[in-house]
Amino acid sequence: MSKILSRQDLNFLLYEWLDAVALTSRERFADHSRETFDAALDTSEKMAEQYFAPHNKKSDANEPYFDGEHVHLIPEIKIAVDEFSRAGLMAAQHDYALDGMQLPTTIASACMAYFMGANVATAGYPFLTIGNANLLLAHGTPQQIDTYVRPLLLGRFMGTMCLSEPQAGSSLSDIKTRALLQPDGTYRITGNKMWISGGEHDLTDNIIHLVLAKIAAPDGKTIPGVKGISLFIVPKKLVNDDGSLGERNDVILAGLNHKMGYRGTTNCLLNFGEGKFKPAGKSGAVGYLVGVPHKGLSCMFTMMNEARIGVGMGATMLGYTGYLHALDYARNRPQGRHPKAKDPSSPQLPIIEHTDVRRMLLAQKAYVEGALALNLYCAKLIDEEKTAADETARKDITLLLDILTPIAKSWPSQWCLEANNLAIQVHGGYGYTRDYNVEQFYRDNRLNPIHEGTHGIQGLDLLGRKVVMQDGAAFKQLGRVIQQTIDAGLAASHADLKRCAALLADYVRRISVVTGTLHSAGDLNKTLANATTYLEAFGHIVMAWIWLEQSLAAAKNISAVQGDFYQGKFQACRYFYIYELPKVSVMIDLLSCLDTTTLEMQGNWF
Amino acid sequence: MSKILSRQDLNFLLYEWLDAVALTSRERFADHSRETFDAALDTSEKMAEQYFAPHNKKSDANEPYFDGEHVHLIPEIKIAVDEFSRAGLMAAQHDYALDGMQLPTTIASACMAYFMGANVATAGYPFLTIGNANLLLAHGTPQQIDTYVRPLLLGRFMGTMCLSEPQAGSSLSDIKTRALLQPDGTYRITGNKMWISGGEHDLTDNIIHLVLAKIAAPDGKTIPGVKGISLFIVPKKLVNDDGSLGERNDVILAGLNHKMGYRGTTNCLLNFGEGKFKPAGKSGAVGYLVGVPHKGLSCMFTMMNEARIGVGMGATMLGYTGYLHALDYARNRPQGRHPKAKDPSSPQLPIIEHTDVRRMLLAQKAYVEGALALNLYCAKLIDEEKTAADETARKDITLLLDILTPIAKSWPSQWCLEANNLAIQVHGGYGYTRDYNVEQFYRDNRLNPIHEGTHGIQGLDLLGRKVVMQDGAAFKQLGRVIQQTIDAGLAASHADLKRCAALLADYVRRISVVTGTLHSAGDLNKTLANATTYLEAFGHIVMAWIWLEQSLAAAKNISAVQGDFYQGKFQACRYFYIYELPKVSVMIDLLSCLDTTTLEMQGNWF
Repeated sequence: MSKILSRQDLNFLLYEWLDAVALTSRERFADHSRETFDAALDTSEKMAEQYFAPHNKKSDANEPYFDGEHVHLIPEIKIAVDEFSRAGLMAAQHDYALDGMQLPTTIASACMAYFMGANVATAGYPFLTIGNANLLLAHGTPQQIDTYVRPLLLGRFMGTMCLSEPQAGSSLSDIKTRALLQPDGTYRITGNKMWISGGEHDLTDNIIHLVLAKIAAPDGKTIPGVKGISLFIVPKKLVNDDGSLGERNDVILAGLNHKMGYRGTTNCLLNFGEGKFKPAGKSGAVGYLVGVPHKGLSCMFTMMNEARIGVGMGATMLGYTGYLHALDYARNRPQGRHPKAKDPSSPQLPIIEHTDVRRMLLAQKAYVEGALALNLYCAKLIDEEKTAADETARKDITLLLDILTPIAKSWPSQWCLEANNLAIQVHGGYGYTRDYNVEQFYRDNRLNPIHEGTHGIQGLDLLGRKVVMQDGAAFKQLGRVIQQTIDAGLAASHADLKRCAALLADYVRRISVVTGTLHSAGDLNKTLANATTYLEAFGHIVMAWIWLEQSLAAAKNISAVQGDFYQGKFQACRYFYIYELPKVSVMIDLLSCLDTTTLEMQGNWF
Repeated sequence: MSKILSRQDLNFLLYEWLDAVALTSRERFADHSRETFDAALDTSEKMAEQYFAPHNKKSDANEPYFDGEHVHLIPEIKIAVDEFSRAGLMAAQHDYALDGMQLPTTIASACMAYFMGANVATAGYPFLTIGNANLLLAHGTPQQIDTYVRPLLLGRFMGTMCLSEPQAGSSLSDIKTRALLQPDGTYRITGNKMWISGGEHDLTDNIIHLVLAKIAAPDGKTIPGVKGISLFIVPKKLVNDDGSLGERNDVILAGLNHKMGYRGTTNCLLNFGEGKFKPAGKSGAVGYLVGVPHKGLSCMFTMMNEARIGVGMGATMLGYTGYLHALDYARNRPQGRHPKAKDPSSPQLPIIEHTDVRRMLLAQKAYVEGALALNLYCAKLIDEEKTAADETARKDITLLLDILTPIAKSWPSQWCLEANNLAIQVHGGYGYTRDYNVEQFYRDNRLNPIHEGTHGIQGLDLLGRKVVMQDGAAFKQLGRVIQQTIDAGLAASHADLKRCAALLADYVRRISVVTGTLHSAGDLNKTLANATTYLEAFGHIVMAWIWLEQSLAAAKNISAVQGDFYQGKFQACRYFYIYELPKVSVMIDLLSCLDTTTLEMQGNWF
């Protein structure tokens, strides 16, 4: 059995729950079928097992190093990403016109899930490259698409996103990187970028940096705040008109970060325009504007939103593979006896027989299968957004995606990390050693609540922006969608489903009320003081909805043959409603009081 | 300011809350005073800063390795433990007759806290050595004390505890190590032990292993189960009658475990009696019985209970130092602005100004200061147990210590790990890199919910044994002690304290009721199915009590001069009662239903 991802679960989610095959009725996916979807999944599973999983530990133990000139990676990483590109997976979801496979994002995400579960650090390179290509497809000129996107989708180039700077991590309005317009219409970029994943390596001929910078007037002045930010393509090597590579651009690696996990992905400090590689007659790194001036941040958010959902998927898959490792260990490790059968001469039981181990496995199952379902649901929304027949439907889907993005990012980052914590605990002392895999998953996953917008920032995004935007349109749209599930649950014959539906209805009502309370606090500081608690309460309610959805699908498809699988879904749903959802109750109580304990805490009281 | 431990907090806990100076009225501590206590603390703080903290990162990056003959440690470890011994700290709490300082355990624990916070892995060596010596003092013969304890307390020897075996981790009844009585009254030990911290190194001339084994009859038979287990001293090198070292005993290192954290402490597989070092004419490792045959486990529990409280202190101190690191970072890192002051031309604020960062710091403060208070409270109980005037008082104290031990071990292991998680989050991306210290604290601390009895085992110990033993005597005793605090809180003039006291009273009532419900389930499986949830609920109530205790002490001592410090205590207490304690409510609800979701989950449903 695969220890990356359960194919039975994936098939259930894709075909029994999300009805991915129905997408083939859309023109864009008309050439596809269950068979082509399965073929892509089979290939991904096989390649992930063959090229990605085997070096996961090795690249953790042998992290990239920089000799002052070059970054050295273990050779397996290049082999893996080359095979990935050769199989056409870089362009799995892209247009035929771009030599893509034009698969639904739903399927492409499921394919990527295998690679993330097998080796999240190596998967980071294609993940960023695809995001980079997608941004340029959305905002680049046809020439930029030809010059950069085509090689990106072939895996000849790779891509990055360059936002943070040493003095400006989460606070993008404070970036100092400058762009100066040249007579030839290009820009010269100068500045320092930080935390750039995949910022330097020799995996590909070229690296395409997408860089946020402020356009400086001839007097050096820039528009303050985020409104002044523009977006630029800054290739590591300049690309000639015929597509061949030209001179080295003035982008240099200042150093690598040495991390607790995700070690196989280089994480870089990059200096732009320091003069080390000065293209002939040019001072500064050559950059090409993407989109229009001063609209860089909204362009970047095309990539950022995709990256956030992708970070959620990475977190999910680390949790998922950890769960399968723990399950396998628990089935095979004999230790101890039941409380009522302590005869020491009886054989020891596999630890899965202990209730507390089952609790830890059930919690992991609820977290990781729930998170995967949510991530695939979001992927399906992207397909719907792209192909839905009418404009109104598309708008509703965009709203749904807007409001679910902070959850799809933060919830797996929090709870699938907790799943990894439990996977270690199931392994006992062995899980704490590097002879087993779970300690690495735990270290890797700890990055996910930090990058692409910290956990706290997701809370501010959700409570401060998403639930109130367009007069609460996204919030209402999500409410409508959840209500359909509640109605289906209340109409179900299964007593457990009815009960869950009733509980969910109550929590939805309570989160609506408290959202109103928070936004009528009359003081933005009070509204946002407990935004993280709001995010976590909201996330658990979304997950309760996702579990009820899964249970409804299970109830519809349950058969004698596969009974165990569906029983497992019901039991995980039951676990979530009994052990997890009640946690929301105390969070909502806290939010309802507009508690100011944290707001009133003084710096000098610490 | 120290980033290991706040001396102001320590002074508050020791002198204002626990009134450690009052111990000097006991005969045992009559030579001591606040001055001698402070001198020991000063020395510990200075030595921890000078000898332990500086190599914490280095020993993590350069873990011990075994060349097949010897284990190599970085030299700083030996220097540190030698200095520790030279300062007399190995015998800080021991009798003058043993050349000890006869300090109260309360003070000795506070001293040890500095070393654990500075470098938990290096502190592991003296920690285990002291525990080993204490066990022998309690159960060894005068000759064993002379031969082994004296050199242990001088730091000439070090000690280990050898319980687990590859096929028997938590299930001690399944150990296979055998002891065969010899005509000279010694035993020959054969078997394999696993997870032995400090099991091999060259820090000292000798290593004293305390080994659990089963005495075999001449026909090879042993008494099955834990009842057949006996305890043996098995020195690495035999000790001659004159105290000089003799032959190498037949104990060999089979290998080192490579862990996620705690890397500076060697963790060993030891083989006993394999014949590599065969003392002349002897087959097997030479062992000396401690105490009486078949009572080994209860002897070992002298060390185990001390080790459990010590593990709690280690977890606490990792959380504590992480908190102080995060606090320092938050005070010095400028980033972003207040929600209502987004003018991008205004200077960025130190991140401690952000409410969500303050929430994370306040949570850490509540966890780590609370955990330290609990650990010191337990240390004080050990002093009371040793020196209380009458037998009844001593019995009550033993009961209190019995019931608090699983909490003192598990609560810091869970919540100070969470503090380390939050310390990383406060640091953002920096916290995830090895340039900062907090990622190591997080990795180190992940061991603590595993060793010396896993989290799950603590739950079984508390619910299955401690709360019901002697007809609930320990539970009742704890109830009485907490009631005194509640009464004092209700009588306080501070409205917040009154409110907390009333809340605490309610939770105590509810946990009493649910304890009864669980134990009248009529089915041990049902009683214990959610033992971990019970442990966590119980732990949070104990911590609420500890925070009310601290607030009461703060209220008594608050002065204008140190107002900020006491305000911080009040605010952390408020945080605990508003953000943390309500979590117990849903746990008790779950327990009250005798929920069987985890019990009914089937292995093949996963």
